[in-house]
Amino acid sequence: MNKQQNILIIGAGLCGSLLALRLGQRGYHVTVMEKRPDLRKVNISAGRSINLAFSDRGNKAMKLVGIENQVKALCIPMNGRMIHDKDGNTFLSNYSGRDYEYINSISRGDLNALLLDEAEKHENVSIYFNRKCKSVDFENTTALFYDYESKTEFVEDADVIFATDGAGSAMRKSYYLGKKFLFSFSQDYLTHGYKELSILPTKEGDYKIYKNALHIWPRGSFMLIALPNLDGSFTVTLFLSHDDGEYNFSNLTTPENVTDFFKKEFPDALELMPNLIEDFFKNPTSPLGTVKCSPWHFKGNTLLMGDAAHAIVPFYGQGMNASFEDVVEFDTVLEKHKNPSTKSDWETIFKAYERTRKKDTDAIADLAIDNFHEMKEHVNHDLFREKRNLEMALEQHFPEEYTSKYSLVTFNENIGYREAMLKGRAQDKAILNMLADKKIDLNGDLRSILDKVKFETEAILEDDRIAGLK
Amino acid sequence: MNKQQNILIIGAGLCGSLLALRLGQRGYHVTVMEKRPDLRKVNISAGRSINLAFSDRGNKAMKLVGIENQVKALCIPMNGRMIHDKDGNTFLSNYSGRDYEYINSISRGDLNALLLDEAEKHENVSIYFNRKCKSVDFENTTALFYDYESKTEFVEDADVIFATDGAGSAMRKSYYLGKKFLFSFSQDYLTHGYKELSILPTKEGDYKIYKNALHIWPRGSFMLIALPNLDGSFTVTLFLSHDDGEYNFSNLTTPENVTDFFKKEFPDALELMPNLIEDFFKNPTSPLGTVKCSPWHFKGNTLLMGDAAHAIVPFYGQGMNASFEDVVEFDTVLEKHKNPSTKSDWETIFKAYERTRKKDTDAIADLAIDNFHEMKEHVNHDLFREKRNLEMALEQHFPEEYTSKYSLVTFNENIGYREAMLKGRAQDKAILNMLADKKIDLNGDLRSILDKVKFETEAILEDDRIAGLK
Repeated sequence: MNKQQNILIIGAGLCGSLLALRLGQRGYHVTVMEKRPDLRKVNISAGRSINLAFSDRGNKAMKLVGIENQVKALCIPMNGRMIHDKDGNTFLSNYSGRDYEYINSISRGDLNALLLDEAEKHENVSIYFNRKCKSVDFENTTALFYDYESKTEFVEDADVIFATDGAGSAMRKSYYLGKKFLFSFSQDYLTHGYKELSILPTKEGDYKIYKNALHIWPRGSFMLIALPNLDGSFTVTLFLSHDDGEYNFSNLTTPENVTDFFKKEFPDALELMPNLIEDFFKNPTSPLGTVKCSPWHFKGNTLLMGDAAHAIVPFYGQGMNASFEDVVEFDTVLEKHKNPSTKSDWETIFKAYERTRKKDTDAIADLAIDNFHEMKEHVNHDLFREKRNLEMALEQHFPEEYTSKYSLVTFNENIGYREAMLKGRAQDKAILNMLADKKIDLNGDLRSILDKVKFETEAILEDDRIAGLK
Repeated sequence: MNKQQNILIIGAGLCGSLLALRLGQRGYHVTVMEKRPDLRKVNISAGRSINLAFSDRGNKAMKLVGIENQVKALCIPMNGRMIHDKDGNTFLSNYSGRDYEYINSISRGDLNALLLDEAEKHENVSIYFNRKCKSVDFENTTALFYDYESKTEFVEDADVIFATDGAGSAMRKSYYLGKKFLFSFSQDYLTHGYKELSILPTKEGDYKIYKNALHIWPRGSFMLIALPNLDGSFTVTLFLSHDDGEYNFSNLTTPENVTDFFKKEFPDALELMPNLIEDFFKNPTSPLGTVKCSPWHFKGNTLLMGDAAHAIVPFYGQGMNASFEDVVEFDTVLEKHKNPSTKSDWETIFKAYERTRKKDTDAIADLAIDNFHEMKEHVNHDLFREKRNLEMALEQHFPEEYTSKYSLVTFNENIGYREAMLKGRAQDKAILNMLADKKIDLNGDLRSILDKVKFETEAILEDDRIAGLK
């Protein structure tokens, strides 16, 4: 115990509370400041997604802190995408050809509460709520807070500050506005936004549609999805353009309009959602943005982690998993550098962490945008379906030899996102082109197809390497 | 004359003064506010590049406003890159296999002065200096200025505001900080910075090295370049990492250090630069950044143009050319929509302009970063040299049939940057891979090589289209 170091964590969301738990386990003196009320006492889901996709990278972090089994109890397995067409027909497209690979729907609130409980079990961890960070003086390693209870401001001093305060990070804003160093930064919004809706349980408390799937109603330029909750309900999300197309968030302003839209595009969903109009006009329309930046740290003083460093769009179901993986990766670097006690030690650690980590968070940001197009559009595309069917067959028959991009990203926590992206994209390109050029006989021998796919994938990667003069 | 519309232009640099001239020619009532003093009266080169590369896209704009011949008198043609190796050997690598295709070195100050003179010839154009824009109220179409002469602030009202106030645009900052709409924005810095130096003329006023080339001393992770000026001098620029490598801007802090560095890496240049140490410690080290953003306009009120909308790194010599091309493209859209008189008319024009233009400015930003690596590194790479030699031969023998990426970008002003990028990259990939795989016999028939290159380029483009499911 005791590392003589006072650590301040800004934000007790999923990433911050996990980080507090892990640093608490390591014996640091940890103070956490969270701007929201304690979600274990007050219902504060408003404005943030209610349930999330939890998969192997996130689970690796749960194993690290020893709460894997408690988390498992909160999970609802989803084995594949259930596609709903306009006529109400459905078909299930598995996420993997290996039965033991699936993703999970989990409640953000339940998981966050568990992490807070576990962190607070450590005497050396203190968590304060209703303290909003206004700015960080990264040169002096202090942060300015506003206390909603006493309605006063105060300054918190620390040896090291971690900002896990989400996509709208106050510390990242201080980096940007401070102009004390060259800070690369981007915020990119999609033309689409989202709105949360719901499918409530039956009177008997049962699920109205198949429980163990992520439901998608893909419609080309927009889509509806639904993830199950433990209480028998589904949280439904509409992804739609702010301004373009016949129907968009700007012109869906009346109950009649909204009903017409759902009647036309999602008739089977509409039947399950008598509460549609109430949800639609009660819940906010939120933007979909990607944030990247660099450097994440200022010297050995401060470090951005989680969404504060790399917010992504939700279409790969990897936002929380990537933030949890941050903590695992950081812990690995910390382990290597044992007992940092000076600013210089911490700077070495922060640099090493960003060097290994940033390429991967950049990759998942780009993959998440790819998947936006895949989900709303490509899943309905013949060539894409042929590819997915072939990949399922390859994964089933050659579980040790073939892994799709989706599986590389989602179920292979020991492969970085960037490697998964490069290999996965090359595989997709190989298969799609061979299918388009009729170079694969889908009724032919699966082993010879696998060999062709492997050969073409390698050729594509090699051509790219040469073109990049690497 | 007279369109009843009062137009305010913020910034009288290259883009702003050209825009003022063109809108003046079209009869608008134009007011221009520039924060610097009038460069025709005061020498204010400090901190900005002294000379620039001027090529066909820029020239298209000069033709539009009718000053092509006056600009030509300011130009020094550069036919190729003169590569200097460590032993002082040099070889010339032409920019094109077509003799009539070359770029030009031009003085930023001389060109800017010419544009200001031409703009001011129009009674309906007024230009004010020493007025710094502090912010723009884009909802009310007003801008707040500080007058350095009277030391007072004032508000300028207009029907439409154009911000051509460069990479650090005040209006772009107002868009960002205003949070009135979803504003996608990025600033990305390279790990390298730059510093301007000089090679002075001989006592007789002659050029010390070959006049009609862009000189490069490529050294893998850093480089020196030199462009000629009309007075016999060269403006030299050192591109070097801020912090990494044996020598970098952070550790080049003493005259001995700097001299050692040049002695070791650029001995032939050092001999030409007795003034090196003075220049090095007098001139600032500046960052190299890329800025992208969207939307460029707020409704029909305000529009970002030039570097304010899309600042790029200088390695393709396209910064000024791209900004001039903005004015040409905007003028084309304006021509189509005749006499905009309402906010709604202007909004239609701004939207149409951004829709056609942004894909191209995004492309040149990415191409400029590619060229950073090409110039400092690849020009010394055998495979790259083989490619360039082959391309020169193809351009010489088949001037109507083959155009390299460099030529597409630089000499083909009727092809957009994005199309040039896609085709140029595919060609490069085709040639580099065929060379690496020994599929091209460089001693073989040039016509059959051309056919192979064309075929492979098309195949690469097609494979990418299929992989994108387009």
